[in-house]
Amino acid sequence: MLSEFDLISRYFSRPSCYATLGVGDDCALLPPCPGMQMAISTDMLVEGRHFFPYADPEKLGHKCLAVNLSDLAAMGATPRAFTLALSLPEANPNWLAAFSEGLFAVADAHGCELIGGDTTKGPLTICITIFGEIPPGLALRRDAAQAGDDIWVSGTLGAARMALAVYRHELSIDVAMQHAAAARLHTPTPRIPLGLALRGIAHAAIDISDGLIGDLGHILDRSKLGGTLNVDALPHGDILAVLPPEMRRRFTLAGGDDYELCFTAPTTNRAAVLAAAQSAATAVTRVGTIDASPGLRLIDANGAMINLQSLALSSFDHFISS
Amino acid sequence: MLSEFDLISRYFSRPSCYATLGVGDDCALLPPCPGMQMAISTDMLVEGRHFFPYADPEKLGHKCLAVNLSDLAAMGATPRAFTLALSLPEANPNWLAAFSEGLFAVADAHGCELIGGDTTKGPLTICITIFGEIPPGLALRRDAAQAGDDIWVSGTLGAARMALAVYRHELSIDVAMQHAAAARLHTPTPRIPLGLALRGIAHAAIDISDGLIGDLGHILDRSKLGGTLNVDALPHGDILAVLPPEMRRRFTLAGGDDYELCFTAPTTNRAAVLAAAQSAATAVTRVGTIDASPGLRLIDANGAMINLQSLALSSFDHFISS
Repeated sequence: MLSEFDLISRYFSRPSCYATLGVGDDCALLPPCPGMQMAISTDMLVEGRHFFPYADPEKLGHKCLAVNLSDLAAMGATPRAFTLALSLPEANPNWLAAFSEGLFAVADAHGCELIGGDTTKGPLTICITIFGEIPPGLALRRDAAQAGDDIWVSGTLGAARMALAVYRHELSIDVAMQHAAAARLHTPTPRIPLGLALRGIAHAAIDISDGLIGDLGHILDRSKLGGTLNVDALPHGDILAVLPPEMRRRFTLAGGDDYELCFTAPTTNRAAVLAAAQSAATAVTRVGTIDASPGLRLIDANGAMINLQSLALSSFDHFISS
Repeated sequence: MLSEFDLISRYFSRPSCYATLGVGDDCALLPPCPGMQMAISTDMLVEGRHFFPYADPEKLGHKCLAVNLSDLAAMGATPRAFTLALSLPEANPNWLAAFSEGLFAVADAHGCELIGGDTTKGPLTICITIFGEIPPGLALRRDAAQAGDDIWVSGTLGAARMALAVYRHELSIDVAMQHAAAARLHTPTPRIPLGLALRGIAHAAIDISDGLIGDLGHILDRSKLGGTLNVDALPHGDILAVLPPEMRRRFTLAGGDDYELCFTAPTTNRAAVLAAAQSAATAVTRVGTIDASPGLRLIDANGAMINLQSLALSSFDHFISS
């Protein structure tokens, strides 16, 4: 029988590189970081809520760190370290080996070091707290949008929601397409290089986890501004091309689990945004404008207004939806 | 119906004092802290495992932050900030009001600010990650004990275990006594002032959460040393005086949930330790010695060896016990 300490030493202890003191003491110790701000975010993933029971543990290891890295990306912060708290129904060696493999693959890809954590018996729940660095004044805050800014999104939207629709039998698509969509749902790519490249170029940013409309809404609320989105400009990629236009609109506007960045930048920075995107090898698309007048307006490619209600959208809320 | 965002703004949003940016963005931002190391710890508390179902939410708010503060105390770190990830079966306003009241009372008492978090629907689970500061080189690490050091403990041991014994019907004691014991279990006092006062005086420290023997064992393991404990010197306080000696020994040696500090210091620092304890208004007791030869030896007041096996002790392990 694997003890708590065996479990930690076998699957979650690796030599510290960044930390002064890593896994195994009352606290981890991070070195002083002259002149830098620390960016901190925490996310809790619960079985049956954020992932299916019996989810592939390697992909789960990837996703639970990727969603935290996505928060650093949305701030423009450099990943440094994370803690992992894990509640497990049992200490299953196969599950732990696969989970830690998925987790450390993403951690290593981003130079983000596991510095401590906690393990306990209980319903499968994963809580990661992540630490990044950013020079003061350069963070891409939600409250920093300005009237007249362009609204941009990275990558493509809606594929994760499309995969979910297939799992829920709302939709049937061919297997190769579902494979591609499922990869977006289970192993999202945190947009760290783009977030870093946008420092000093973008004004506000957020990562799209609950759907574009809801998350853009947080930028508008915190910046006390409004916005206009060109629904037909939203990048949906090849995967969503097969969908009826109405469903495609719903999935790109309010799909959730995209983990792309939505950001705003002055129109004078359009060339700089495109250069930053190129340096980060990440596509970006201009999809709208920040307005002085409150509220979010949707328009189509011809500039005609679309009624938000008519789309029957709802941004995800843990305590209201289902 | 309370939404996730209502819930956060109503119960968990307060003006930031220390943080450059607090609750409500992708990340919190902490200011640069010239020359200081950051001490970080995380603990996850699961209903039915770390606390009873239907636990008093105000006390639970106290305890879940106190156990994290206790990790900072054991490092000698100054509390600064924490994040809170909360999985809740439902958004119950009465529960949330009481929980946040208990949480913030402890936070305010220690100048520790809530800077961010996550809420989700799911089995009741609380994960706090805490941040403190400490000048480089002054942390009270588990691996820093030296042969010849005295072993000390703060406060008294065993009362939390005694309360648990009553809940489990292993024991029956009078109501006033059970009240006093239960307070130790539900609302532990993190030994922050003592941890700070011991900087530069103590060598190694740990907080006693899984029982003295197990936790002292971590100091011995990490320091590659052994130790001798005088079992009759262990401070048990008035509450445990009513217990049969054998049970008292078990509860003080391996009770768990004490959240006192166990620390080592050179014999030349005895007066300094007592002065530090006095300045922190926290009792300390000298209970043993760190030895060069590995293993932990127990002796009684007369210096006679006690067989560890004879006490039928077991340190708490989440994946082995129960």
